[in-house]
Amino acid sequence: MDRLKEMREKVNRAIKEFLHEEKPPRLYEAVRYLPLAGGKRLRPIMALLACQAVGGEQTLALPYGAALEIIHTFTLAHDDIMDRDEQRRGMPATHVKFGEATAILAGDTLFAKAFEIVAGARLPAEVVARLVHSMALMSKEICEGQQMDMCFEELEEVDEAAFLAMIEKKTARLFEHACLGGALIGGGSREQQATLGDYGRWVGMAFQLWDDCLDVVGKDIGKPIGSDVREGKKTLIYIYAREHSDHTGWIPYHGKHDASPAEIQQVLQAFAASGAIDHATQKARGYAERARKALAPLPESESKRLLMDLADFAVSRGT
Amino acid sequence: MDRLKEMREKVNRAIKEFLHEEKPPRLYEAVRYLPLAGGKRLRPIMALLACQAVGGEQTLALPYGAALEIIHTFTLAHDDIMDRDEQRRGMPATHVKFGEATAILAGDTLFAKAFEIVAGARLPAEVVARLVHSMALMSKEICEGQQMDMCFEELEEVDEAAFLAMIEKKTARLFEHACLGGALIGGGSREQQATLGDYGRWVGMAFQLWDDCLDVVGKDIGKPIGSDVREGKKTLIYIYAREHSDHTGWIPYHGKHDASPAEIQQVLQAFAASGAIDHATQKARGYAERARKALAPLPESESKRLLMDLADFAVSRGT
Repeated sequence: MDRLKEMREKVNRAIKEFLHEEKPPRLYEAVRYLPLAGGKRLRPIMALLACQAVGGEQTLALPYGAALEIIHTFTLAHDDIMDRDEQRRGMPATHVKFGEATAILAGDTLFAKAFEIVAGARLPAEVVARLVHSMALMSKEICEGQQMDMCFEELEEVDEAAFLAMIEKKTARLFEHACLGGALIGGGSREQQATLGDYGRWVGMAFQLWDDCLDVVGKDIGKPIGSDVREGKKTLIYIYAREHSDHTGWIPYHGKHDASPAEIQQVLQAFAASGAIDHATQKARGYAERARKALAPLPESESKRLLMDLADFAVSRGT
Repeated sequence: MDRLKEMREKVNRAIKEFLHEEKPPRLYEAVRYLPLAGGKRLRPIMALLACQAVGGEQTLALPYGAALEIIHTFTLAHDDIMDRDEQRRGMPATHVKFGEATAILAGDTLFAKAFEIVAGARLPAEVVARLVHSMALMSKEICEGQQMDMCFEELEEVDEAAFLAMIEKKTARLFEHACLGGALIGGGSREQQATLGDYGRWVGMAFQLWDDCLDVVGKDIGKPIGSDVREGKKTLIYIYAREHSDHTGWIPYHGKHDASPAEIQQVLQAFAASGAIDHATQKARGYAERARKALAPLPESESKRLLMDLADFAVSRGT
């Protein structure tokens, strides 16, 4: 894990250097707020490892990895406005801290910066053009996923397939492109790019499903247990529990913003009793397993081992 | 003007084709709303003309021109949220029509689309990489300009130099990059790119200053006379009038949202009496003249003549 820590620090330094602009001060204070607030940096780390796993020099993928992390934080800043979330990474959300107008603008600026960084990277022009195309398609899908997520909030019933399609776009695609782009930068073959893209996508799915599980067991996520329940989020756990339990008892408390701790507990107990938590956990572990298996064609290396470890980490953190 | 109309229709078709996505329907309805609502398409037309003026085939610049128009509409959709403007192009603003969350997301999607279009265009990879870099830097400056504009709203006094620096970023830079990028695509030399970039920047300045003048004479802008006055916009006319009049009489009505028609008239009369409208008009015409002069090094051609005409149009529309 020392290797990962070292990479995280390298990524942090790169992000800080890329976001060096000063004027207007109010804008750039907001621009730096979330990206410099820490985070696991999983996406850029995966880009670096994917680059190395196909024989490339890790550092070549640093601008691309940093750009993806910046896109990630831009989507968080905008999502928090849309979802009316007031906390992020244990701090006030960007729009709470800087006002909504500047938060919208800071997100837009971060999005522009991501393309500036990649277009300005010392990479062959063909690689730049492909990375930009892939970042653009991915960003569009993240928006589509967020819109699907918002539409789900208004529906009484959402089925599992629709839910999985949503998180694939909203969360998994960014992991996929981190790995695929890293492999492209590292000079990997088309097959290796696809292999690493598959790995990234499955890790992303595992990661998101595990995140939803952590909400109901209340660990490692910087917000109180049952936050998703209180906000009425249509997670896989909710969807499964709704289909597999007599839901008349707990449904009224799901999405009840002023629910009492006892009411939240009643929902969480219904989730457990219906087998929904086990189902989501198994599903998350299944994706992590697919991710590990996807890596089989790659030659053994330290990077490959670290990618394997990250797939495990996706479904073990917080336990 | 038939040639310009023909080009506008070509641009309209291209934008419509590029924005073909269907799902989720709510998102893409919002995505198409502003871009397909018409508009003069000056920026893409200038990109096409700049391409042709250096000897390139006009159509080569169509994806880039469409992408810039899409970036322009994305900034309008987000600005309307930030500025709490409820009308745009004589219709409800995007956030009024679709809700704020979807309007933010539609803007983000348009921004992503712009990069997708350029990265997917049939152009040499070196050209794509340079266009993307230039689009990213330009978008960042548009955000900076919008933040400066928002900060100005909170200040009692803004000076002319700061105001001009703001509109250069917020408005002129997009015209500049339309022309510069068009020249790059058309195979123009570095000098020709710079020449056309200068032309575009000055036209953009002229265009914005003239727009502010039209607000106080009330023509051709799809909103009632004195809208900027009612909203308290710190235009060049306001800035000049504030410096060159006894402003105790009219200042209280500037930015008074429920000002009576008589109160608005009082502000407009003070603007005229102080010489502010003449000053802004002269300034706009001066920029248009600089734009025309910038074109001098280019060989004579129909495109060059049309670019000259557009510089005139920037400071004559609505009269």
